[in-house]
Amino acid sequence: MPSAPDPAPASLADHLFRPAAIALVGASDDPAKTAARPLTYLRQAGFGGAVFPVNPARATVLGEKAWARLSDLPRRPDHAFILTPTEAALESLEECGRLGIPVATILADGFAEAGAAGAAREARVLEIAARTGIRIVGPGSLGVVDRRSRMTLTANAAFAESDLPLGTTFAASHSGSLMGALVSRGKAKGIGFSGLVSVGSETDLSMGAICSLTLDDPDVRSYLLFLEGIRHGHDLSAFARGAAERGKPIVAYLLGRSAEARELAVSHTGALAGDTDLAVEFLAAHGIARVETFEGLLEALPLLQRLPSAAPRGRSISVGVVTTTGGGAAMVVEQLALRGVSACVPSRETLRRLNAAGVSAGAARIVDLTLTGTRYEVMKAALDVMLAAPEFDLVVAVVGSSARFQPELAVQPIIDSAGEGKRLVAFIVPEAPEALGRLSERQVPAFRTPESCADAIVAVWNRRFVADRPPVSPPRSGPRNHLDELEAYAVLSRAGLTCAPAIVLEDDAEPKGLTYPAVAKVLAADIPHKTDVGGVVLNLEDEQAVREAARTIRRNVLAHRPGAEPPRILVQPMIKGLGEALVGYRVDPQVGPIVLVAAGGVLAEIARDRSVRLAPVDLSTARAMVAEVRSFDALAGYRGRPRGDLEGLARAIVAMSRLAVLAPEIIECEVNPLIVRAEGDGVVAVDALAVAASLP
Amino acid sequence: MPSAPDPAPASLADHLFRPAAIALVGASDDPAKTAARPLTYLRQAGFGGAVFPVNPARATVLGEKAWARLSDLPRRPDHAFILTPTEAALESLEECGRLGIPVATILADGFAEAGAAGAAREARVLEIAARTGIRIVGPGSLGVVDRRSRMTLTANAAFAESDLPLGTTFAASHSGSLMGALVSRGKAKGIGFSGLVSVGSETDLSMGAICSLTLDDPDVRSYLLFLEGIRHGHDLSAFARGAAERGKPIVAYLLGRSAEARELAVSHTGALAGDTDLAVEFLAAHGIARVETFEGLLEALPLLQRLPSAAPRGRSISVGVVTTTGGGAAMVVEQLALRGVSACVPSRETLRRLNAAGVSAGAARIVDLTLTGTRYEVMKAALDVMLAAPEFDLVVAVVGSSARFQPELAVQPIIDSAGEGKRLVAFIVPEAPEALGRLSERQVPAFRTPESCADAIVAVWNRRFVADRPPVSPPRSGPRNHLDELEAYAVLSRAGLTCAPAIVLEDDAEPKGLTYPAVAKVLAADIPHKTDVGGVVLNLEDEQAVREAARTIRRNVLAHRPGAEPPRILVQPMIKGLGEALVGYRVDPQVGPIVLVAAGGVLAEIARDRSVRLAPVDLSTARAMVAEVRSFDALAGYRGRPRGDLEGLARAIVAMSRLAVLAPEIIECEVNPLIVRAEGDGVVAVDALAVAASLP
Repeated sequence: MPSAPDPAPASLADHLFRPAAIALVGASDDPAKTAARPLTYLRQAGFGGAVFPVNPARATVLGEKAWARLSDLPRRPDHAFILTPTEAALESLEECGRLGIPVATILADGFAEAGAAGAAREARVLEIAARTGIRIVGPGSLGVVDRRSRMTLTANAAFAESDLPLGTTFAASHSGSLMGALVSRGKAKGIGFSGLVSVGSETDLSMGAICSLTLDDPDVRSYLLFLEGIRHGHDLSAFARGAAERGKPIVAYLLGRSAEARELAVSHTGALAGDTDLAVEFLAAHGIARVETFEGLLEALPLLQRLPSAAPRGRSISVGVVTTTGGGAAMVVEQLALRGVSACVPSRETLRRLNAAGVSAGAARIVDLTLTGTRYEVMKAALDVMLAAPEFDLVVAVVGSSARFQPELAVQPIIDSAGEGKRLVAFIVPEAPEALGRLSERQVPAFRTPESCADAIVAVWNRRFVADRPPVSPPRSGPRNHLDELEAYAVLSRAGLTCAPAIVLEDDAEPKGLTYPAVAKVLAADIPHKTDVGGVVLNLEDEQAVREAARTIRRNVLAHRPGAEPPRILVQPMIKGLGEALVGYRVDPQVGPIVLVAAGGVLAEIARDRSVRLAPVDLSTARAMVAEVRSFDALAGYRGRPRGDLEGLARAIVAMSRLAVLAPEIIECEVNPLIVRAEGDGVVAVDALAVAASLP
Repeated sequence: MPSAPDPAPASLADHLFRPAAIALVGASDDPAKTAARPLTYLRQAGFGGAVFPVNPARATVLGEKAWARLSDLPRRPDHAFILTPTEAALESLEECGRLGIPVATILADGFAEAGAAGAAREARVLEIAARTGIRIVGPGSLGVVDRRSRMTLTANAAFAESDLPLGTTFAASHSGSLMGALVSRGKAKGIGFSGLVSVGSETDLSMGAICSLTLDDPDVRSYLLFLEGIRHGHDLSAFARGAAERGKPIVAYLLGRSAEARELAVSHTGALAGDTDLAVEFLAAHGIARVETFEGLLEALPLLQRLPSAAPRGRSISVGVVTTTGGGAAMVVEQLALRGVSACVPSRETLRRLNAAGVSAGAARIVDLTLTGTRYEVMKAALDVMLAAPEFDLVVAVVGSSARFQPELAVQPIIDSAGEGKRLVAFIVPEAPEALGRLSERQVPAFRTPESCADAIVAVWNRRFVADRPPVSPPRSGPRNHLDELEAYAVLSRAGLTCAPAIVLEDDAEPKGLTYPAVAKVLAADIPHKTDVGGVVLNLEDEQAVREAARTIRRNVLAHRPGAEPPRILVQPMIKGLGEALVGYRVDPQVGPIVLVAAGGVLAEIARDRSVRLAPVDLSTARAMVAEVRSFDALAGYRGRPRGDLEGLARAIVAMSRLAVLAPEIIECEVNPLIVRAEGDGVVAVDALAVAASLP
């Protein structure tokens, strides 16, 4: 193959999305075969670049000249789509790399998900990439689509459709087949895509890395992600930061949970948090709107355009509701309530202005215009007053049967009031495709179910993006080093957390300077769960009791590990409080540093009564975390009970979360219990675990 | 008006749904007015009976002869639709009653929901009904529709459409405007109605009573209810029993919650249960499938036809999943999991049969046929093997893009495998209206979102109808009588519950025969919350302490109620256990007798960690209730902790629930705490409250 110099230096994004020439390795001549689809779709879409089918068995493929080998091609392609089965795909990739092709997308599966043999294949993919510099989408990718360059480089049957709308949303999906549902459902809603990518197993190019390539594309104005979990969190984090800085919103549907990461945790923090919670928090903290309904994924996009900023708002959204159908509006109000959002009663001033505008409205959560609302001027006046009212962040118009029978009249006041950027959305209660179509055309957020309406509103509002959060680092490997309790206290004290005073009792030395009652514990970095080995004795009233306890503990521990050195003993005063909490910190391999707070005790553990955030957090976030743990209500003056120092608890959460910046070598730390004393008396750590990793 | 004798005796159902003559009281000549709609729609639908517009101001209405007064009509109508405003409507009703018209439907609102004036109007409606024998739908009803008699007696704009499909489902709605959404959305899904009713405020005829009128109609084969709460529970209960006995399934969407009933409860049971929980339990226990998504309300109907029995199944549904799109199937699996249902791995035998039939399948929760599944014979073979497998109660086929591009091919194997009654449903992932239409035509349950698919499956399965449950009685009014603790123990002992021994200490009598440590409590029926008045002293070690405690309690109580008689004192041994529970019983005015179990302690109260059922319950249901309360996991051997007598707790729940049959005069009873001792040692009530009502 003659190596023609590139006329201009092309970027990875150019090769990936706007290649001048494409090779289809393994292109099939049988139109019924999957491997025939990319050529068909590229031609159908009118792709302007060169397309080279590569097939050693045929001179032509689907009527076009085919080449037997990649090395026969008249010029070097920028992007090869490898359609051959697993083993052959590896050989094709090797050849692509050797020929200096900058990007390959691999269709075959049988890599990351296929056991030991698959892992070996995956390692070879990475080795080829490192050796030759080729960048790879997949394996297991259904392809890449760029609608502007008309590059439908995909085997997804959905692209048989040639009149798909062009849009400004870039979509990335862990599931390749889902891309089809996105484009067909999007078309029905008038939502088009600028491009789509099926990222497959993300062996080389991760979803975050691919999306980042489009950040400065002016034609991409929002993102849609279909996720099976958080993978390559540092790339996704960098992409989300870049999108937030540019005001390009992201919506995501998160599927699936994995148990693997939990097993890694020595302490309870991992088990308590669970990966789904972490993934959910990762998305929210990165300003990504996470919807819980499949319909909401597409329907949230127009709303995101009206609320592009992901800055944290620190309070629940205030929603006003105007309707012609009480039952339909009540469904939205209830769906919002189930998601923790109250529809709000208009202020007296707003009610006065509504009535002055000829709209009869009372002090209720729903401004119900009943049948008068089918008149343009009544609905328009009501919406304009509500949109101008300072107490509402968003107004929902709920339209009844008139949307079906007089679509042009029923939705016109909504379109006119919504204008270009007003925070107005519509829920259409009857089946009324024409009304929905008119709203979509004018980019007015419109919903066909109360669930997707409430889902999208809450998802869009609950995002929060903090610009000064430290970036998520790539996962660290290497040896893990368990700290003993005293070392853990030292780390915590440095972060600003109050720890119970502790004295180490060497051998049979006389215990001095102790406060009673006291507790004696085995002090050993390799015994994280001390009670399991009989390593704790409580309620020691004097020196004699302490000495006896120390002997008991040494005996118990040595029974568990015959022949070991007698362990050291830690003695502390027993600290009493009104309640207990668990505060944990962990550097998750995917989502980065997290901080967790949970109520102490077995009931809280069973009920998974806890709150988790990416670390570090500020004081107001820590207060919100405390408020989320229902068990702490018992320490907040519930039914006349004494108040615990929940403000101190919030400060302790802040301190723990700051390990993310103060002590990056600490990958896990847990205080359990943290004693919560009476209001004003603070909180005290009376047990602690920590694990350090070698820094890269 | 000449009173012509009826040619044959007509029933209430005939008058309501198949009237020979209708009066439209207040019919408007202005087609834009709501009051003009019923005449327009009746004519459009081709109603065969007589229609008499009544309007004192016009000789004709919409081109038809109008009568000035009801008394001028040439014959007595069977059903009058009163379209006049509130006050005039009352006068019209009075006249209808006087003329012997059997049924009136009232459009106006301003009754039950309109404060004191509204309540007075409502009382007058009931008085007219009692005096004249007229039966009333509404007030606040948008009308009644019977599709077979072409009687669209409604002001709902949705009936402007004349080509609505006829079906076998009868719909009843608390919200009149929602009827429009049901018919238009139903039409789009190929679902028609045999009749619909907007029940309004149910002042006379309740939703249950109206639906009961259709139970023996062979053309009504299922029911759809849109509920804003449970009202007139005894009527709804009787209707649901009738429907269950006839194998006619009911699906319901439940909206709204009210706080009123909670305030009635003296004890905690009311606050702990909450009306929504009661309503949810009421529906489930009556064999009514309660969906949580609006789309599921209509989409569940074809599935109900395939699973008409509401008999309790006592276990979670076992679902098999077959797909051509892994991502789409994973969404359904996750939505099922979020509702507590696991998609199941096929058995080894099923896998063997799948592979023998040429379907490549492994031991996974999803049988993913990938692209081979787009071939008829592969999908058909897979579905047939899965449907024949004994381990699955239901099979879900999840279809990808082929449903859009080859609808006839993609859904044909599903239609063929589903046959008339097989438990097979389809979730169509892309936008594919034609595929959905084909499935609907053949009555194959088909879903367009993963949420509504999982929602309908779980709603249909979780119904349970127990034929021998006693009917729910109408709410009782009359005086309430608080029992004292000793009387409450007597009631509980009769029901079979073990109560702590109790001795009454009269005045300063010598305490005899006591076991120590003991507790002394004030014994007074009118002091339900004893600790609030200093009426309890714990940990009494001897006679002297008991005497002192008795004096203290008398002093405390008299300080709260100066001049009263010195109260009696109850002394009991302190009973220790591993944990505490609250067991409550209450006759709810709407849903009837309920039994509730909750964990003891403030944390359980905050977390609303409880389970509620209609009473009475059997032992297996009581066990299920115990399992639902997460805090009791701590007594079930959690992390090596000692086991509590949870079987004894279940028996105590059964005993408490039997008050519904043993002691119908008891309308409220609560044991808090019930001490749960070690496994095998039983449970003991150490405090009890009860309230009795006069029986009717």
